[in-house]
Amino acid sequence: MGISVIGTYHTKFGILEQTLYDLILEAGRGAIEDAGIDPAEIDGIWVGNLSGGGFNDQDHIAPFTVDIHPDLRFVPANRVENACASGSAAIECAKYAIESGEQKFALVIGVEKMTQRDTKDITKLLAQSSYWPEEGGKGMTFPGLFAEYAKGYMAHYGYSLEELRKDLARIAAKNHVNALENPLAQMPMDITAEKILNKPDNKNPVIADPLRLFDCSLVSDGAAALVLAPTETAKALKEEVVEIAAVGHTTDYLSIFKRSNYELTAGKLAVRKAFETAGITLDDVDFVEVHDCFTINELLSYEALGIAPDGQGRRALDEGIVYPDGKLPVNLSGGLKAKGHPVGATGASMAVLAARQLLGNAIGIQAKDPEVGVTFNVGGSAASNYVLVLRRIE
Amino acid sequence: MGISVIGTYHTKFGILEQTLYDLILEAGRGAIEDAGIDPAEIDGIWVGNLSGGGFNDQDHIAPFTVDIHPDLRFVPANRVENACASGSAAIECAKYAIESGEQKFALVIGVEKMTQRDTKDITKLLAQSSYWPEEGGKGMTFPGLFAEYAKGYMAHYGYSLEELRKDLARIAAKNHVNALENPLAQMPMDITAEKILNKPDNKNPVIADPLRLFDCSLVSDGAAALVLAPTETAKALKEEVVEIAAVGHTTDYLSIFKRSNYELTAGKLAVRKAFETAGITLDDVDFVEVHDCFTINELLSYEALGIAPDGQGRRALDEGIVYPDGKLPVNLSGGLKAKGHPVGATGASMAVLAARQLLGNAIGIQAKDPEVGVTFNVGGSAASNYVLVLRRIE
Repeated sequence: MGISVIGTYHTKFGILEQTLYDLILEAGRGAIEDAGIDPAEIDGIWVGNLSGGGFNDQDHIAPFTVDIHPDLRFVPANRVENACASGSAAIECAKYAIESGEQKFALVIGVEKMTQRDTKDITKLLAQSSYWPEEGGKGMTFPGLFAEYAKGYMAHYGYSLEELRKDLARIAAKNHVNALENPLAQMPMDITAEKILNKPDNKNPVIADPLRLFDCSLVSDGAAALVLAPTETAKALKEEVVEIAAVGHTTDYLSIFKRSNYELTAGKLAVRKAFETAGITLDDVDFVEVHDCFTINELLSYEALGIAPDGQGRRALDEGIVYPDGKLPVNLSGGLKAKGHPVGATGASMAVLAARQLLGNAIGIQAKDPEVGVTFNVGGSAASNYVLVLRRIE
Repeated sequence: MGISVIGTYHTKFGILEQTLYDLILEAGRGAIEDAGIDPAEIDGIWVGNLSGGGFNDQDHIAPFTVDIHPDLRFVPANRVENACASGSAAIECAKYAIESGEQKFALVIGVEKMTQRDTKDITKLLAQSSYWPEEGGKGMTFPGLFAEYAKGYMAHYGYSLEELRKDLARIAAKNHVNALENPLAQMPMDITAEKILNKPDNKNPVIADPLRLFDCSLVSDGAAALVLAPTETAKALKEEVVEIAAVGHTTDYLSIFKRSNYELTAGKLAVRKAFETAGITLDDVDFVEVHDCFTINELLSYEALGIAPDGQGRRALDEGIVYPDGKLPVNLSGGLKAKGHPVGATGASMAVLAARQLLGNAIGIQAKDPEVGVTFNVGGSAASNYVLVLRRIE
C-alpha cells in the first residue's frame, strides 16, 4: 500500500512567542484544515520531538494533541524521538500505522521550542544526543562532533583548511540566499562566500576548529505537520497527490569515534535503501532537502546522495548542480542553516517543504515542475539516518 | 495479520549497578537468545523510555541497540515515549511495523535507569509527565495527582477515608505478598493489610493526602524486551505461541483537572477497544497486570476493566477475585508496587510477564493454565492508556 500526504502546515521558524503547546496546536490544526477532512476522521497522531523534557520541562507531550480539536479526544497519540531526526521518525511510524490498515488518516507533528533557554543549557541538552559517557559528558558538543567530520574529511582526502573553508562558505551563502524567498525562514541573508570568508574573526569566530559561526545552523522554535493517508484514499480526495514512495532508515553507532569520520556511512545506506524501494536513481530526483546542521554535513550529503563522487563533494558547487537553477537544487528552503532548526520539527519540515514543492506551491523558491523530491534527515552525529522519497502522482 | 511474541527477557528490577546502556544490551540480547533467531534477522528495533535525557543525560538512545550484536548495525531503531506507558507504546509501534509487512522480526525494549538520581530530581523528572504549566510546574507531583483520584473517588461515591485506606492497604499487601514468588521483584514483603494500617505515622507517612508511603510504587532500574513476529512465522518457529490479539490505546487530556477524577474515563474506552478487537469479554481473561503506580489506580482499574461495578472496586477484594487463587488474579508479579517501576520498562515488563504466564513459565506465581492475559499500562495521570490482550495459541 502506498501512503500519501493530503495536508501540510509549516509555522514560522525562529525566536517565537508561542509555547511548545501553542506550536503543536497551530501545526496540527493547520494540517487538518489543509487536508480538508473532518478532524473526527483522524485515527492516530505521531509527534516528533527531541526534548520537551529538557527544553520545556515537559515530557509526555503526545496528549497535548487532544486540544487540537474536541474530536481528537481519545485518539491514540505517541511521541517518537531520534534526536534531530525525530520528525522523520514520526513520519516513519505513521507510515507503518497506515500500511498496517489500523490507521487511515494519521496526523504527524514535528515540534521543538528551544530559544527561551540560554545558550549553555541548549548546548548541553543537544549534547545529550551524542554518546554522553564519552562525548557530551566529556565536553564534546555537536559543533565539536561535526568538526571531527571536517577534520577527518581534510585528512582522508588531503584537503587544506583553506580549500575546505571555501567550500563550506559557498554552502552557507547558498542557503542564506535561498532563504530570502522563504517567508517562514529564520535568517535569510543576501551574502556571498567571499563576504563570509573575508569576515574578521570576531564576526565569524571559530566555534569548533575548523568550523566557524557561519558553518553552524540555528537555534529555533517551530513546528511542521502533515496529514497522511493511503494513496488510494488521497487520490479520491485530491486532484494531485504526493506519495511518500520510500523511507530509508538506518542506524549506526551513537559515537562518531566508532565509525568513519570522513563520510556518512549509514547515510549512504539509507539513500540506497530509499532509492531501491522507490525504484528511482538520482537522475529521477528534482530537488533535495538535506540536513545542513553544519555546512560540512551538507558537503558530506552530496557524496552520500551520489551528487558528487566521494571526496569531491565540492564539484556539486563547482558545477552549479545544487544551486536553485542547477540540475539538482539542494535546500531551496534555506536549509537548517537559514530556514532554522527546531530540532524535533526538522524532519517534518523537510517533508512539508518537499510536498509543497511537488504540488507547485513551494514555501520559497519553486523548483521547475518537479516530480520527485528527496529529504535526508540526520539524528546525532549521523547515527540515525532517514531518507524519504516523495513523488507527485495524478 | 496477527502478531506474536517469540522471545522475552526481563532483568531484575531494583537499585541496580547496570547503566542505561548495560540494561538495553542485557535485555536485547536476552530476548533475541530466547527467540532463538539469528540477530541478523531483526528488521527493526523499538525502544520505550521515558526520560533518558532527564535521568541519564542521554537522549537519542535508540542507536545504543547497535551494540546488542554486530549484525544489528544499520537496523532501523526508534525510541517511543508516552510517560510510564512508553513500553506499551513501543510494542504498539512494532505491531504496526510488522503488520505493514515492512518488518518481520521486531525487537522491543522498555528501559529506565532512575535510582542514581536523588529523590528531588526523580520527583521533578516524573512530574514533567504531568501538564507542567499547571501541574508539575506548580508543585503538583504524581503522588498529588493520584491523590486527586483518591479524593475524587471518596467524594463521588461517598466513601470515608477509613474505608478507602482499608481497600488500598489490601491492594498493597496483596502485591507485596505476590512479589515473594517473583525472583526479579524489587520489594517482596510478607505483610498484611492490618499490619500496614497499624503502622505508626513515621513508618507509613502521608505522601500526598490521603495517599501514604505504602500506596506508592517504587523507583527502580530495569528493562524488559520482546521479539515479535507475524503469528504465522511464530507458529513455524515455536510449539506454543502467544499472540498480541489487541492493543487498545486511548489518549485523554494531559491535565487531570480537565477530566473525571473518580474513574479512568479513557482507560475504560481502551479496555472496550481492546476487548472488541480481540473478540473477548472479561470472562475470557485469566489474569491481568495493571498499573498500580499508586494503589488507588489499581482500585480504579478493577472498575475500568469491569471486574467490579463503578464505585465498588472493593468487591474485587472482598470477593477474593483478584488474589492469586481468585477468579481473575491481578498483578501476580507484585505489580509496580512490589515488582518495581522503571517507568519506561513497565509496559514491556507487563507484556513479558503475561507472555511467560501464558507459556506456563511464569516469573513468579503461575496462573492455572491461562489462555488469555491482559495488561493495562498508563502514562501520566492516565492521559495515555494502553490495554493489551495476549492469547496463547497452538
